[in-house]
Amino acid sequence: MSQDTIDPDLAPGSVRPGGRTARVRAAVLRAAGDLLAETGYATLDLGEVAARAEVGKTTVYRRWRTPAGLVADLLVEMAETSLPHSDTGSLRGDLLENARLVGRTLTDPRQGRLFRAVIAAATSDDTAAAALRAFYDTRLAEWSPCVTAAIARGEIPPDTDPRAVLSAVSAPLYYRLLASGDPVDEAAVAAAATAAALAAEQGVFTRPTTQSAR
Amino acid sequence: MSQDTIDPDLAPGSVRPGGRTARVRAAVLRAAGDLLAETGYATLDLGEVAARAEVGKTTVYRRWRTPAGLVADLLVEMAETSLPHSDTGSLRGDLLENARLVGRTLTDPRQGRLFRAVIAAATSDDTAAAALRAFYDTRLAEWSPCVTAAIARGEIPPDTDPRAVLSAVSAPLYYRLLASGDPVDEAAVAAAATAAALAAEQGVFTRPTTQSAR
Repeated sequence: MSQDTIDPDLAPGSVRPGGRTARVRAAVLRAAGDLLAETGYATLDLGEVAARAEVGKTTVYRRWRTPAGLVADLLVEMAETSLPHSDTGSLRGDLLENARLVGRTLTDPRQGRLFRAVIAAATSDDTAAAALRAFYDTRLAEWSPCVTAAIARGEIPPDTDPRAVLSAVSAPLYYRLLASGDPVDEAAVAAAATAAALAAEQGVFTRPTTQSAR
Repeated sequence: MSQDTIDPDLAPGSVRPGGRTARVRAAVLRAAGDLLAETGYATLDLGEVAARAEVGKTTVYRRWRTPAGLVADLLVEMAETSLPHSDTGSLRGDLLENARLVGRTLTDPRQGRLFRAVIAAATSDDTAAAALRAFYDTRLAEWSPCVTAAIARGEIPPDTDPRAVLSAVSAPLYYRLLASGDPVDEAAVAAAATAAALAAEQGVFTRPTTQSAR
């Protein structure tokens, strides 16, 4: 690939929503997501992504550099997609909705395989790992109002950590997908939500006292 | 690599514990585990494994065939390593011991990276995925007596599913390691054990009634 050509898409100030840069990014990330879902991270090839996106190979190599760079940008795009939290009026109801959303995502043929692939990428690359953490930061923050509302309603202790509660809902479903291979079914979804709600009600997810004294 | 040489290690009846075959396997799996822990699954190379194990490249290619084949056999060896379950006299005590063991494993520099690598392998290869599930089948079964003892002591409902309880202990720690990036610390370990025990006591992990009627 030629290193000395100037790519107009990379010139400062050239990035504008809806412009060619945005269209190229959308096409490349869609192709990367498709390939990750189809064959996983270990075989992800930038040339193949470029061909499928119908974008010049040089552009892809220069802008994303490595398969992990592509995964990281894909996670940024995934975090940008807003998914509003539920408001059923009770913590148990909201956590069940959250568990159902996670369950639907992980069992969706494309999405489930895509999540396994980006998690695989994060196991061996620091950039992908940082992007994955940022993605979960966004997702867990989006649903935090369910937990703060439950605190306001007096359902759970005031110093409950929203991130810990929401992580407890997701964790058993991810464990099934990534480790045990047990099905991510409605029973698993309901158990995840109920167990997290019970533990929250009993004060398992309160912040350490040293922090609540701040 | 030569396909027509006869490898005495692959001749029927040649496998005996402590023999050359067993020594070769131990050396190759140790090298594979080291490389997986150092650089992850995406870059695992059979030639590099052979060189590090000081074993002929042909032997490694013929016996394990692919990086995923190596991971699968490594998981078989990991499952063979017996780790006896605790018996503290209470479910809460036993689950805390179990959570501590999982926490120690996932935070150990070599073991933590090794687990992330084999999970990555399982995301893109069916053989590795089957081996990973078999590994967790073994591990979860090894600790099941803690749950059946708690049933016998009347701490939890008789139709509690041991696998569901033990999965609930591990899941939040794996979620931290693989997804959220939150620390796998003593607070996380204690919360995982307590939340799982609470949910078990409240009957969240009982088997569906259709099954208990068998």
